[in-house]
Amino acid sequence: MARDKKMVESITSMDVDFAQWYTDVVKNAELTDYTSVKGCMVIKPYGYAIWENIQHELDKRFKETGVENVYMPMFIPESLLQKEKDHVEGFAPEVAWVTHGGLEPLQERLCVRPTSETLFCDFYKDAIQSYRDLPKVYNQWCSVVRWEKTTRPFLRSREFLWQEGHTAHATAEDAEARTVQMLNVYADFVEEFLAIPVIKGRKTDKEKFAGAEATYTIEAMMHDGKALQSGTSHNFGDGFAKAFGIQFTDKDNQLHYVNQTSWGLSTRLIGAIIMVHGDDEGLVLPPYVAPTQVMVIPIRQDSEGVLDKANGIKDALKAAGLRVKIDDSEKSPGWKFSDQEMRGIPVRIEIGPKDIENGTCIVARRDTHEKQTVAIDELVNVIPGLLDAIQHDMFERAKAHRDSSMYEATDYEEFKKTIDEKPGFVRAMWCGDEACEIKIKEDTTATSRCMPFDAKNISDKCVCCGKPAKHLVIWGKAY
Amino acid sequence: MARDKKMVESITSMDVDFAQWYTDVVKNAELTDYTSVKGCMVIKPYGYAIWENIQHELDKRFKETGVENVYMPMFIPESLLQKEKDHVEGFAPEVAWVTHGGLEPLQERLCVRPTSETLFCDFYKDAIQSYRDLPKVYNQWCSVVRWEKTTRPFLRSREFLWQEGHTAHATAEDAEARTVQMLNVYADFVEEFLAIPVIKGRKTDKEKFAGAEATYTIEAMMHDGKALQSGTSHNFGDGFAKAFGIQFTDKDNQLHYVNQTSWGLSTRLIGAIIMVHGDDEGLVLPPYVAPTQVMVIPIRQDSEGVLDKANGIKDALKAAGLRVKIDDSEKSPGWKFSDQEMRGIPVRIEIGPKDIENGTCIVARRDTHEKQTVAIDELVNVIPGLLDAIQHDMFERAKAHRDSSMYEATDYEEFKKTIDEKPGFVRAMWCGDEACEIKIKEDTTATSRCMPFDAKNISDKCVCCGKPAKHLVIWGKAY
Repeated sequence: MARDKKMVESITSMDVDFAQWYTDVVKNAELTDYTSVKGCMVIKPYGYAIWENIQHELDKRFKETGVENVYMPMFIPESLLQKEKDHVEGFAPEVAWVTHGGLEPLQERLCVRPTSETLFCDFYKDAIQSYRDLPKVYNQWCSVVRWEKTTRPFLRSREFLWQEGHTAHATAEDAEARTVQMLNVYADFVEEFLAIPVIKGRKTDKEKFAGAEATYTIEAMMHDGKALQSGTSHNFGDGFAKAFGIQFTDKDNQLHYVNQTSWGLSTRLIGAIIMVHGDDEGLVLPPYVAPTQVMVIPIRQDSEGVLDKANGIKDALKAAGLRVKIDDSEKSPGWKFSDQEMRGIPVRIEIGPKDIENGTCIVARRDTHEKQTVAIDELVNVIPGLLDAIQHDMFERAKAHRDSSMYEATDYEEFKKTIDEKPGFVRAMWCGDEACEIKIKEDTTATSRCMPFDAKNISDKCVCCGKPAKHLVIWGKAY
Repeated sequence: MARDKKMVESITSMDVDFAQWYTDVVKNAELTDYTSVKGCMVIKPYGYAIWENIQHELDKRFKETGVENVYMPMFIPESLLQKEKDHVEGFAPEVAWVTHGGLEPLQERLCVRPTSETLFCDFYKDAIQSYRDLPKVYNQWCSVVRWEKTTRPFLRSREFLWQEGHTAHATAEDAEARTVQMLNVYADFVEEFLAIPVIKGRKTDKEKFAGAEATYTIEAMMHDGKALQSGTSHNFGDGFAKAFGIQFTDKDNQLHYVNQTSWGLSTRLIGAIIMVHGDDEGLVLPPYVAPTQVMVIPIRQDSEGVLDKANGIKDALKAAGLRVKIDDSEKSPGWKFSDQEMRGIPVRIEIGPKDIENGTCIVARRDTHEKQTVAIDELVNVIPGLLDAIQHDMFERAKAHRDSSMYEATDYEEFKKTIDEKPGFVRAMWCGDEACEIKIKEDTTATSRCMPFDAKNISDKCVCCGKPAKHLVIWGKAY
């Protein structure tokens, strides 16, 4: 693992340089690495194990709502990409083009999918004929490519892993219900499984997905006060259906266009886990998503009986259904502690000769660094509850941090000053005019994150232009 | 599902036209569909569910041997692909080339991975420094692209799903042991989980992987007597390590090159399941891999109590851990039977008013079409054992069919006649000279499938040229 060379000291403090801290954590916790392919990353075993846990849990939640998985080609013929006008305008500037197959130039160039609406539409136009064929609630797990200019591990890379759901419905109401349902699946998953509080809301027209009627989003606040869009769900109405000719015969024997949705969530979320929960010792993983939940570290492991006891603890906790490892390498306990902390493993158990004499061990929480002495025989009763408590506390801490970094403004000078001086989000009214969004971005670099579902008006004037306000908007600088 | 239009009669008999029968099964069982992207397929929900079960079981078996999953970029810079001479010669003619990112031409073109040895090597050359970093036993689940001229669903398509394992070891012995270990994992998986008997052996130099020192394979016989290469495991020795400069400092403080392996298994295996087990009614799925193991079909479902009873049976079997569905659609029982048979669902339970009176139901096996009457209360005790029996019997039947289609030849005229007239494999001795392989292929279209591990010589002369024989080879026509 080339761990010898890793020095915990090499990590930058998050208060000194948050961006460098992020890069250091990603590298030292061995989540990703750079590659010879510019803008693309290797997801290393520890990073990929986090993604597998995300996939497993989210896929289970999808299937409980009737989602079926499929696989579509990774290529989109140029003519297919061009069928929906807004969609091609949004994506064409950032796709990778395949022009040659083997030694021959292609008759029509193919882009590597940046997202697969066009492929699903092309499939649905033949697969859907009757109301009996509806709804279609399909999803795929795959990688997509967007030719970004500047990239950062997990947050923005030229290739990333995600899931993309694509559904077709008989009515506009069914499509709207599915759009909201999947946003709620995302919100519940991110809050319950990743311990990250989110704000649910609707994107402004400027920020919505290329080709969508409405985009709903979950927005999370990172530790530095910036926003990360963490999952989106789009209602397409019948726009794509009309562009692709997806019609069905309803019970009334009339031809109708279907209504469609799509929704996606990506490896970006691993970036959110790092930036919401991490600290100056490294990663801090919520127990439910942690590949290893408990690390057993023997102290004076060469002493008689220590390794046996440590392994016994590991086996007992494993048998209780927990994800447990033992670090019985030749390293010093201090090095092992730092390594476990860097990797964000939620609970550490220290066990040495004196502990064994007393029939106890030390249990240390990664999130609070609190330590307690626990009877060895009680571990299988204590640890599961402790993991639940850590999961709960991490969510509450993240929520308290976010709520304390949420401001309001009714006056533009105050708005600009708050955005400029205080890390966090600002709630302010908006007239609905894109010009104000553009002006705010130019003046502050902040963008409209969403119009939250549960919003109450805080003024009747747009914070920017003073004209009558239509929506409360959450504004923030974003990743 | 557009099932209305599906007619079971539309399927061609396998004895009339095996290739058309295959296409009909793939279409009517709703496994895949064609797309606007030439040579690429949609894997539909039922086909993808089979792949998910394969992935789940194989991934579990991998992890039991210490495999860790990772994700590498889907692109390979041309200069990287060219580093190992044999490898680039083998793959360059069939890769897809990306030449533009967004609106700009790329400085160096990138191929879409046909396989990822070069990317793993590029990663390992930095990640491996010391003997402590070894072994590396990494795997990824992804799609790969090979620009094939003629394509068929699952068997040969321009994009397919697979896993590719890539390992690095301190010694040649360790690499050889891992190569064989993974071949055995494949063989056990295919035999135990897919009920397909395989022959384990080594490929001739002509047939081995581009850049490998040795390729081991599992070869399966399809119902028509043709061979399907079902999984391969390669030992690279230190060839790639030398081309990429992957060296480590050993305990003796000396620099050594690592020894590497790779191994892959793909959606092709779904083609094998179809062609080994299928019949003129459609797909026949081994119970362990079947997305639905039991279909409950109510008879006269409008009669009072029938649907309740049928749902009760479904719930009881589900609670017993089986994958069960009920077909309570408006279709006739006859249509439902045909549909269940086309989809290869291993067990059908028929339950109507008369059965309910008697407290029994009809249990029908898909593989043998045998029916038995079973007390409803006994189903949870009877069905699990029945599924095991079906799994076992399907393997034994496939094995008996294969063994009865296995011939020997010591004389070239006899060899050609057997290959020509009898579907199946021919065991014959070979001198080791590629010229004889080429001649045999020209004369018969058969290729060397493998040199089986457990081979006993049947003659001391090459069946083709008559010179001294070195190896027993299994010959066959192949997909």
